[in-house]
Amino acid sequence: MPTIAIIGAGAMGSGIGRRLTDSGARVLTCLEGRSPETHDRARAAGMQPASLQDIIEAEIVLSIVPPAEAIGVAEMLSAAIGERPSPVTFVDCNAISPDTMRQVAAAFRPGQATVLDGSIIGLPPQPGKAGPRLYVSGDGADRSAVLAAHGLQVRRIDGALGAASALKMCYAGINKGVTGLGTAMLLAAIGAGADQSLKQEMAESIPDLDRKLSVAIPEMYAKAYRWVAEMEEIAAFLGEDDPASLIFRGMAGLFQKMADDRENGGALAGELNTLLHR
Amino acid sequence: MPTIAIIGAGAMGSGIGRRLTDSGARVLTCLEGRSPETHDRARAAGMQPASLQDIIEAEIVLSIVPPAEAIGVAEMLSAAIGERPSPVTFVDCNAISPDTMRQVAAAFRPGQATVLDGSIIGLPPQPGKAGPRLYVSGDGADRSAVLAAHGLQVRRIDGALGAASALKMCYAGINKGVTGLGTAMLLAAIGAGADQSLKQEMAESIPDLDRKLSVAIPEMYAKAYRWVAEMEEIAAFLGEDDPASLIFRGMAGLFQKMADDRENGGALAGELNTLLHR
Repeated sequence: MPTIAIIGAGAMGSGIGRRLTDSGARVLTCLEGRSPETHDRARAAGMQPASLQDIIEAEIVLSIVPPAEAIGVAEMLSAAIGERPSPVTFVDCNAISPDTMRQVAAAFRPGQATVLDGSIIGLPPQPGKAGPRLYVSGDGADRSAVLAAHGLQVRRIDGALGAASALKMCYAGINKGVTGLGTAMLLAAIGAGADQSLKQEMAESIPDLDRKLSVAIPEMYAKAYRWVAEMEEIAAFLGEDDPASLIFRGMAGLFQKMADDRENGGALAGELNTLLHR
Repeated sequence: MPTIAIIGAGAMGSGIGRRLTDSGARVLTCLEGRSPETHDRARAAGMQPASLQDIIEAEIVLSIVPPAEAIGVAEMLSAAIGERPSPVTFVDCNAISPDTMRQVAAAFRPGQATVLDGSIIGLPPQPGKAGPRLYVSGDGADRSAVLAAHGLQVRRIDGALGAASALKMCYAGINKGVTGLGTAMLLAAIGAGADQSLKQEMAESIPDLDRKLSVAIPEMYAKAYRWVAEMEEIAAFLGEDDPASLIFRGMAGLFQKMADDRENGGALAGELNTLLHR
């Protein structure tokens, strides 16, 4: 029975943990200072609370935390590893840009860790469904095999460290970007009295997009505040020299507007819902 | 047999002309100073060359020209109308913002014309297909009925002058914007070595979008130079106060990059094609 450690027991971390324990792995996690809810979630997933010293003894350590905590997790592990002679295998699975991924790798001192770049695409694991997929780059020695052998959908990418993070940025840029475009233009159409006609035209001439937006826009409101930082991360990933970075700075502003709207009673969301579900 | 006039005999103008003549209308157009190709296209569509003085006698006059010429057409007609006692019914069918539409209307002196706001969504008419659709706003008196009676798909919008133009902006913002998002992120993925994985992930988890982009991106290259101005028009329509206007300024930059790429040998287009058709 292999021992796998997961830093982070949120919805995704505990979902991944549950899939691994269901597949016969022993899964450790660090719960020091975490809320009772997180303790409950980890316990329900069959994950075992452990000290950092136990965690760095695991065959592989996954970081599944909010993007802003990614570097801090690596620094914490580096401090725990100290002068330990054999390197830890560490996979950052977070939605961060390739540049931030390189900072995560640089948080370890030479010899402390074999760092892999991971990214997760899809919703947390659900019984009976295969997803999500964990993409891994910089894994020439196939150290992620233990994850694939214990229930996770793992895809290795040939590219170097950063390729899996770039993949996540690009996928989110398209998938969440489409939701942003739809939100922006439906709001503009409402303002101009062209919304009913636009909705009908979309239903007739681009029905796939119309269906996607009808689901994706209402699901976005509660997540808009998180998407602001994600869009800024994509803009930074593209860089100032790429004119497309401006697209994602605009997207960040749009999702900020939707996050503010939610705080202020959701008037815009209400108008969109009326149009989408008429 | 009603007489309808069309200013502009490009692919769309002559296609619309052909549908109207096929449906029994007499269609006039102004060919002064136009190329032999335009003369041929108009003749093939059954349109009759006419002077401006004949054109302003038509039951309804349509303007179907590049966006930059829309105001000029209105000014030219206003000069031709002069002191003529009965107003001309004029439909601007061009892809212009509501603000530009208001300038078109303002080019006529009071009493010279009944100005309707039109916009066309879809490709030029093709035998056996119903599209495109002509949306018309500001048409309380149903003056566009003659067009609907002679083969055109006409939809009147309740909104005031500008609503049909806004509809076109919003539809293009979504439809062409999606193509821009896909182009931007596929290029970024190619640069980061994540392109094959991204393409596979899209094919599996967002197959509708994947299919759309595989067709729409290659079709965009030759039109990118025109889309630059169209994206800037959408940004202006949204206005500086709307954070989404930044999205479309970025889109304009992206399509400019693709237009430049085409002028310089199409290296980026080649990379995209290889990925899209592997």
